[in-house]
Amino acid sequence: MKLSGKNNIGFSWSASGSKTFRAFDPAVNDFLKEEFFLATDEELDQIMLLAQNAFSVYRKKTNAERALFLQAIADEIMALGDDLISRCVAESGLPAARITGERARTTGQLRLFAETIRKGDYVQARIDPALPDRKPLPRYDLRRMSIPLGPVLVFGASNFPLAFSTAGGDTASALAAGCPVVVKAHSSHPGTNELISLAINRASQKSGMPEGVFSMFYADRVLGIKAVEHPVIKAVGFTGSRQAGMSIFKAAMNRNEPIPVYAEMSAVNPVILLPGALQENGAAIAEGLAASITNGTGQFCTNPGIVFTLDNAATEDFLQELIKRIRSTSPGTMLNTNIYKAYQESVSRMKSIPGVVQIAMTEKIAGINEGAPVLFTVSAERFCSDHRLREEVFGPSSLIVLCQSLQQLETALGCMDGQLTATVHAGKSENGAVSDLLPLMMQKAGRILFNGFPTGVEVSPAQQHGGPFPATSDARATSVGTAAMERFMRPVAFQHFPDELLPDALKAENPLGIVRLVENHLIKG
Amino acid sequence: MKLSGKNNIGFSWSASGSKTFRAFDPAVNDFLKEEFFLATDEELDQIMLLAQNAFSVYRKKTNAERALFLQAIADEIMALGDDLISRCVAESGLPAARITGERARTTGQLRLFAETIRKGDYVQARIDPALPDRKPLPRYDLRRMSIPLGPVLVFGASNFPLAFSTAGGDTASALAAGCPVVVKAHSSHPGTNELISLAINRASQKSGMPEGVFSMFYADRVLGIKAVEHPVIKAVGFTGSRQAGMSIFKAAMNRNEPIPVYAEMSAVNPVILLPGALQENGAAIAEGLAASITNGTGQFCTNPGIVFTLDNAATEDFLQELIKRIRSTSPGTMLNTNIYKAYQESVSRMKSIPGVVQIAMTEKIAGINEGAPVLFTVSAERFCSDHRLREEVFGPSSLIVLCQSLQQLETALGCMDGQLTATVHAGKSENGAVSDLLPLMMQKAGRILFNGFPTGVEVSPAQQHGGPFPATSDARATSVGTAAMERFMRPVAFQHFPDELLPDALKAENPLGIVRLVENHLIKG
Repeated sequence: MKLSGKNNIGFSWSASGSKTFRAFDPAVNDFLKEEFFLATDEELDQIMLLAQNAFSVYRKKTNAERALFLQAIADEIMALGDDLISRCVAESGLPAARITGERARTTGQLRLFAETIRKGDYVQARIDPALPDRKPLPRYDLRRMSIPLGPVLVFGASNFPLAFSTAGGDTASALAAGCPVVVKAHSSHPGTNELISLAINRASQKSGMPEGVFSMFYADRVLGIKAVEHPVIKAVGFTGSRQAGMSIFKAAMNRNEPIPVYAEMSAVNPVILLPGALQENGAAIAEGLAASITNGTGQFCTNPGIVFTLDNAATEDFLQELIKRIRSTSPGTMLNTNIYKAYQESVSRMKSIPGVVQIAMTEKIAGINEGAPVLFTVSAERFCSDHRLREEVFGPSSLIVLCQSLQQLETALGCMDGQLTATVHAGKSENGAVSDLLPLMMQKAGRILFNGFPTGVEVSPAQQHGGPFPATSDARATSVGTAAMERFMRPVAFQHFPDELLPDALKAENPLGIVRLVENHLIKG
Repeated sequence: MKLSGKNNIGFSWSASGSKTFRAFDPAVNDFLKEEFFLATDEELDQIMLLAQNAFSVYRKKTNAERALFLQAIADEIMALGDDLISRCVAESGLPAARITGERARTTGQLRLFAETIRKGDYVQARIDPALPDRKPLPRYDLRRMSIPLGPVLVFGASNFPLAFSTAGGDTASALAAGCPVVVKAHSSHPGTNELISLAINRASQKSGMPEGVFSMFYADRVLGIKAVEHPVIKAVGFTGSRQAGMSIFKAAMNRNEPIPVYAEMSAVNPVILLPGALQENGAAIAEGLAASITNGTGQFCTNPGIVFTLDNAATEDFLQELIKRIRSTSPGTMLNTNIYKAYQESVSRMKSIPGVVQIAMTEKIAGINEGAPVLFTVSAERFCSDHRLREEVFGPSSLIVLCQSLQQLETALGCMDGQLTATVHAGKSENGAVSDLLPLMMQKAGRILFNGFPTGVEVSPAQQHGGPFPATSDARATSVGTAAMERFMRPVAFQHFPDELLPDALKAENPLGIVRLVENHLIKG
């Protein structure tokens, strides 16, 4: 499939600028041949105007119409076939099996959002009937539901070229909520992005959606921030580094009209190994943990970067097993040269920090742009006294923090910033210790795991992928699961309205058959 | 009841600073005798340490325990008796009947939050059961609920010395959510604040709540911002001016860890009068509108400051009736001298704007610190071209915008910033026109009213008191009604946890009997 390299402005494709860039194949260490055009300020303005106009049409589409649109996007992505897989592999260095799985996740979440809006409960309707005879004052009929915020800007992520990019979770949840989406494509995988944009365009046109419901552009940092500052944009979704996330956050907060920013930025995802767990199950934990550390060459936001354990004999045995597994795990191609270089620098820096001991590194030779699995240890005391030890190393690396007591372990955990996840492994008689640790784990993270590993984030109604700052810029939100839609909505109440003027979700006869809070009681149909 | 003038640090009272201030009685135009002490930096630190420690205890209190605490606060407020009413009247210039009503609103909302948390559904539990046999990967059991954010800083409001101050909506909803509260008392009514703080202290101690679950301090702007910046604070509630609200917002966003700010700042609450409504019902609308404009001397955030109407004969008749009513409405004492002076300045400025005509002013002579009801007109064209016409005038003033067509009216409405409310009055055959205006009204405001007046905000489950910026700093939130609790919570998911370690809200047998989303279906009990 031939790529145009153009920006996607509504239903058109445009390349009026002169600055271009090319994608890089980290596995062959060379640029791919196609040129992609950075958007101009004028192109960005055209995109925003179309998004604004599209909003007034798109917001009125029924849940069923939006659901068909989301399903059509999923269908059109599948229709891209192997062209999508091969381009995505070339642009990410990720294996075809992983990309195929990620495509399934991407289409699966589009279909899950379609199902959720078809059900209709997501508007969280509430009805307080009138009390005309109440004294001293009558009460008016009051009905409340959530409505879409407006056009949403989505920044594609480097590490999920499909599931957190052009048609990923942010885009799917914003479109489901009734918001047009403008995607700033990640420069690592522009071809993948063009193919997905094509699929979304086909779906928009086939399902009768307004031009501007989706647009996509390529940008440098300056133009990306201009998009954040554009008055048409009413919310931003982002997955990436803390530095980039915070520059977007600051720009959004300094607008004349500040807007919500959902930036998922960084996490080291502490894993606590209680002594009983290692005694009963040390080898299996070592196996699972090694897999979780090195899975996807460690390029997951839920990668377990810090492991807390007691400094005792059971830990010794466990570490021997873990070392063996890290040594035998092959290096993997990293997503791009910047990420590869950053990983090399982070590992070098870690080695240079006083008190840090490198206890394992893969025995396989790392090829070009390949990240080598590595393990370090440090004492709990040192861990709390040097903030560099608590920063994310993006890649297949983990730091074992050796604690002298459970109390010291809790203190060390308390030194940490907000996290996406916190995990505890416990033996059969350690529920008491878990119970003691739980309040702190809940304070630190958005998802708490018991006897598991943090990589692998289910897309489902009960998922919470988010967490206290700096894991995300807004701990109240999730970027995975059906609740992700709530990020792009706000409530509106209707007072004393005639039934025929109310949105269907609030009408007396409940034509959508949704669950509503009536007189403070949840009622279905 | 003798007032100490001290800051309330946990269960103690402290006055280690040297700066003092006194309350002012606007009705007698003189200071009240008691001195109140501004807190020192050290006192603020003590408060924050206690709040932090209290959180670890308070978050574990059951819903039933917290509910008893909220009810005890309501009881202790009532037990203050007439001392509270008389002090509050002296500090606000508001009539005793209004203060008595506001006390009922304050205790009523404390009891409503008690009822809501006793019911327990507010944690929004979600359960995705395990699918151990799923291919290619099994699914782990995942359970999600909302937990409290941490200590909340509340800024008392000038215009609701009870309902939006020390034990007002922000405090009640934060305490209900499980967050300790630190109140920065408004300098207009420190004595009222001390009495309410006493009541809360008594309630805390009687119901076994930890010291630090509530504290209160007096501060200048610098110390107020220091409190916003204090790392213990995890969210801020504020009701007041846009300038003060934005300085708090900026400080919170520039923290190392940015935190949510719920600032309810300003609104002019447009009221649209369609021609049929005036033909059918002009006199009654004039009566209702005049009452809404002058109610509480116009010192409500929902005061109707802008009225859109067509420039025709029916409007002429309506305006004559409205003018008559404004002329016969007495001036009222304003809350404090600053608000009085600001109102005088705003009215003078309004008169000086080209195209603005003053069409009515009360015929009664205004006494000292009394705001005089006043009406202006301006053309829709001028309205859009001068932003000063769209700014809030805090007091009993309204601006009638005369439009040449419904289309021009819609354009003029489109010029406006975000609002707390938008109202439309329509005749029997004007539902079509309302339907055309509704999308824009929904885009501009948090609450939409039909044939009503925006003052009077019901405290109920379906209420939405909030709206797009600059009405508030966070359109996703409400500061009135049971949903106000959601501002101070965030979700946490538990993956693969043994039942006995889960919070009661998530346990398999549902011991709290709450409504939960199980396998994406809402299930009760």
